Amino acid sequence: MQVTVLAGGIGAARFLQGLITATGSTHEQPTVTVVGNTGDDIRLFGLQICPDLDSVMYTLGGGADTERGWGRANESFTVLEELRNYGAKPDWFGLGDRDIATHLVRTQALDAGYPLSSVTAGLAARWELPITLTPMTDDRVETHVVIDDPDTGAPAAIHFQEWWVRHRAALAAREFVYVGSDTASPAPGVIEAITTADVVILPPSNPVVSLAPILAVPGIRDALAHTVAPVIGISPIVGSRPVRGMADACLAAIGVDVSAAAVAAHYGSRATGGLLDAWLIDDEDANNAGAIAARGLRVEHLDTIFANPGVAQEVAIRALDLAGELTT
Amino acid sequence: MQVTVLAGGIGAARFLQGLITATGSTHEQPTVTVVGNTGDDIRLFGLQICPDLDSVMYTLGGGADTERGWGRANESFTVLEELRNYGAKPDWFGLGDRDIATHLVRTQALDAGYPLSSVTAGLAARWELPITLTPMTDDRVETHVVIDDPDTGAPAAIHFQEWWVRHRAALAAREFVYVGSDTASPAPGVIEAITTADVVILPPSNPVVSLAPILAVPGIRDALAHTVAPVIGISPIVGSRPVRGMADACLAAIGVDVSAAAVAAHYGSRATGGLLDAWLIDDEDANNAGAIAARGLRVEHLDTIFANPGVAQEVAIRALDLAGELTT
Repeated sequence: MQVTVLAGGIGAARFLQGLITATGSTHEQPTVTVVGNTGDDIRLFGLQICPDLDSVMYTLGGGADTERGWGRANESFTVLEELRNYGAKPDWFGLGDRDIATHLVRTQALDAGYPLSSVTAGLAARWELPITLTPMTDDRVETHVVIDDPDTGAPAAIHFQEWWVRHRAALAAREFVYVGSDTASPAPGVIEAITTADVVILPPSNPVVSLAPILAVPGIRDALAHTVAPVIGISPIVGSRPVRGMADACLAAIGVDVSAAAVAAHYGSRATGGLLDAWLIDDEDANNAGAIAARGLRVEHLDTIFANPGVAQEVAIRALDLAGELTT
Repeated sequence: MQVTVLAGGIGAARFLQGLITATGSTHEQPTVTVVGNTGDDIRLFGLQICPDLDSVMYTLGGGADTERGWGRANESFTVLEELRNYGAKPDWFGLGDRDIATHLVRTQALDAGYPLSSVTAGLAARWELPITLTPMTDDRVETHVVIDDPDTGAPAAIHFQEWWVRHRAALAAREFVYVGSDTASPAPGVIEAITTADVVILPPSNPVVSLAPILAVPGIRDALAHTVAPVIGISPIVGSRPVRGMADACLAAIGVDVSAAAVAAHYGSRATGGLLDAWLIDDEDANNAGAIAARGLRVEHLDTIFANPGVAQEVAIRALDLAGELTT
């Protein structure tokens, strides 16, 4: 079974941990292609950093720090400490020593002219990933956030990472801009991965800063609209809160309520020009299932809080089962 | 007193430790400009590494590992371990985590267009160096070594670091080539530092791979020839062995015997078109003093093995005293 997943960072990575083990009694091992968000990539200290690709890579490769929720396990921060001793800026971005090795290998290859998709495949080879991981594009796309400058009050655009990490998403976001997306092309194989899949899954990633940048790459939204595969999403919102991260601050900027139903409405039903065929929500939101279904979506509710890989596996199995039902 | 020192790596750094404290009872604090060798610079993993500049900077800044003889104190090697896990090449160059921070800051500034001399001054500022440290040139000069390829037997040129670190100087060197030196210019202030000095000192650095690259930059040898300052060298050879490093393997390639007298003859007396006015040798070589003096050099012998900074200080004081004598 060919499964294509459009992925943000750690939320997607935890879903993928469940998906790759979701053989159970009813399925063969799925063949998984992950199209990763690169909108939150940033070059710092001369290093090209791809947080979402690396979250997926480290998590599925067994090298992630699952407690901290980002970066490498057994990580140290000696280089960063020394960078600060030199007064190097910015001083708000966490960058571990093991992580830096990844960025050095990546940056050297990029600067030698290799496309990010090839470089990502090279990095992934070391981790012997059970999936195919590809960036959404080989072109530079950067998510910037329009805020009111705290000093002047005038609108200003800052890199997503500055907004997210430095300001902890506490500055009200007026708008998100995916700089470069208008001229970007999907990375090799991305469109095919969507159009030839048996199912396309949108895992519980941030709709605004994880999935929207992917969808902003010309051709990807169209491929989702036209693939014969069912498109199944898993809500990143449970009740009125994000499962993780600060999606609420992002959704507010685009005028979407923080609820599973509102995000479903934001994505829309494929039957009426939207993205989704089905939407998996948490049991806590079961009473909204009818309203979501009324918008033309197949809805199921179950435990979607990935307290352990077993929960993610159950969600993945339900998504694969649903794909089977929607296909036949 | 204005003192200009042409410096290689750790041998020069230890001499400089003595020099900066060489006020004693007879001298005011010398004002020291160090012109550093950049011929052994190398770009690895996308990082611009300047081993000799950093040896001087770390040593005089109090951040050097004096026991290992290179790199930073309290160093860890996590990034390097991870680079090896990725199979990154080369795998023979030692690169510590704290050291990498220096290279990141340097490389980012160089890639932004700043010249190495400015970047070096910026790095040195953090260390509050008691000297002015400048590279010999802002241009790229790399020392390469012509060897017989161990596989084919044909002559091949390899970077000095590959010969020195990977092969431990065990492949017979046919020739040393300072690639780029023919079109290089001295860094800003280098010529002035030589021509306006009260004394120019050649510390016990490797004549072939530390001092020769500096002298190969057009204009520097000429400035040494014409400065009114006395030029005083300290032999890097004691008896028939280098005080440190593998200078013997280098001297063999240029047909110079491994002795204080032979190196003195190689440099030559300024009176007859050479570089030196005076040559400080170790007590062990006292019986050669006459032969060296016969070549037109002022010779003094003393303990030149820098077992501790006090010995280096004594050598520095003797050099400064000698400069006074040679000037009056």
